[in-house]
Amino acid sequence: MISVCILGAGNVATHLFNAFNKSDKVVVNQWFNRTIKPLQPFKNDVEIIDDLAKLVKADVYIIAVTDDAIFDISKRLPFEDRLVVHTSGSVTIHDLDKKLHRGVFYPLQTFSKDVEINFANVPFCLEVLEKENLETLKNLAEAIGSPHSKINTEQRQTLHLAAVFINNFTNQLYRVGHEISDAKNINFDILKPLILETAKKVQSISPYLAQTGPAKRHDKKTIKRHLKLLENKMHEDIYELLTKAIKQTHGKKL
Amino acid sequence: MISVCILGAGNVATHLFNAFNKSDKVVVNQWFNRTIKPLQPFKNDVEIIDDLAKLVKADVYIIAVTDDAIFDISKRLPFEDRLVVHTSGSVTIHDLDKKLHRGVFYPLQTFSKDVEINFANVPFCLEVLEKENLETLKNLAEAIGSPHSKINTEQRQTLHLAAVFINNFTNQLYRVGHEISDAKNINFDILKPLILETAKKVQSISPYLAQTGPAKRHDKKTIKRHLKLLENKMHEDIYELLTKAIKQTHGKKL
Repeated sequence: MISVCILGAGNVATHLFNAFNKSDKVVVNQWFNRTIKPLQPFKNDVEIIDDLAKLVKADVYIIAVTDDAIFDISKRLPFEDRLVVHTSGSVTIHDLDKKLHRGVFYPLQTFSKDVEINFANVPFCLEVLEKENLETLKNLAEAIGSPHSKINTEQRQTLHLAAVFINNFTNQLYRVGHEISDAKNINFDILKPLILETAKKVQSISPYLAQTGPAKRHDKKTIKRHLKLLENKMHEDIYELLTKAIKQTHGKKL
Repeated sequence: MISVCILGAGNVATHLFNAFNKSDKVVVNQWFNRTIKPLQPFKNDVEIIDDLAKLVKADVYIIAVTDDAIFDISKRLPFEDRLVVHTSGSVTIHDLDKKLHRGVFYPLQTFSKDVEINFANVPFCLEVLEKENLETLKNLAEAIGSPHSKINTEQRQTLHLAAVFINNFTNQLYRVGHEISDAKNINFDILKPLILETAKKVQSISPYLAQTGPAKRHDKKTIKRHLKLLENKMHEDIYELLTKAIKQTHGKKL
């Protein structure tokens, strides 16, 4: 049994709490937040606190707060030499106070408040300074059914950056699709199977091999017609830039 | 039982043939292509021909060839007044020869040669000139388990354009993620669950609500650090433009 304390009350903290709570291999000793209100709904499931001085002993303390608050909260912890991890994709391991046993437990996934997540689909990026703590973090990930990889800070920051392209920017392209279809009174639902299939396809073949469409074919006629159809300057700019990018990737090799 | 003849031997034609072939509500009378070779593997399953003059009677003739070849092949058909449809997202219904009963049977999905597709996830956009033919196309879609919608030419062209954003451009963002992770010796596999979850999320909530990340938060510090990390001019340009687009979508309303 691994005991943890969670610090923070955002999406990651809440999804982690729910996963730990369901696991019979993890016990959440306490859940801290600087204001108690967001934790109230969970008061029957766990001890909720808003005072760091009340923190009891645990195998792992998980700081799941905004990047800028991580160092400060780690500095104010009323103990030393215990394993404390943060869950950020971009903050270095050295941004935790050095009196602690430091680690990173970064879930490479997108979390929304009202969307349930299966932790089997949440790969954890693990980093530690003291080798013996790696096992604890591995066990913690496995206790909630998650895959894990040892990833150093530079690689993690790279993954966080790649995730912006793959998640935030992709989602913005869905948004553009929504705007374009809405403008012609077309139900966005009709595009949803295509969204899913596009994501499924690269689970088994590379994005390079999966590419199709006018830009890859260098089909100037269709590209020109599409640009004429677009009624929004931002949509045009995105169309032109990503068409150029696809042409670069799939250009005729010399 | 609906009888069809397929014209063309590309991805759409082949996936359609396989779906029809499996259905007990459709019989493929013939499969035409201007060269017989690509059809050879199917010669035991269907009559394959390379001469339009040999075409026999069928309820629907499906022209699944490149956009530029559609009009020409429709003109050379050795009959009149039979239902002939094309499968293109961008060609108008009037680009079929007017001696025919014209229609469109456009599958809004991405097809790759070696990736199997479940036709329950292929919405067909249907268009006809003679109202009585709509029922035939509806039945044909239903015979292979596909949803369908009546969509006019302008709407279909809009959907084809939206599909470029949602499929081709999204796939290019996956490619960027692949390039970025490869450059730091990170296995692209670790990003695959995020790709899938991003697509799944917008099946139930809108892309607007699903958005997260530094651009939405107007987190200048992270954006600046990401831009510094990027080592490729095209990646930088995409990062900047899509960050701007997300800010525009999620900007503070006045």
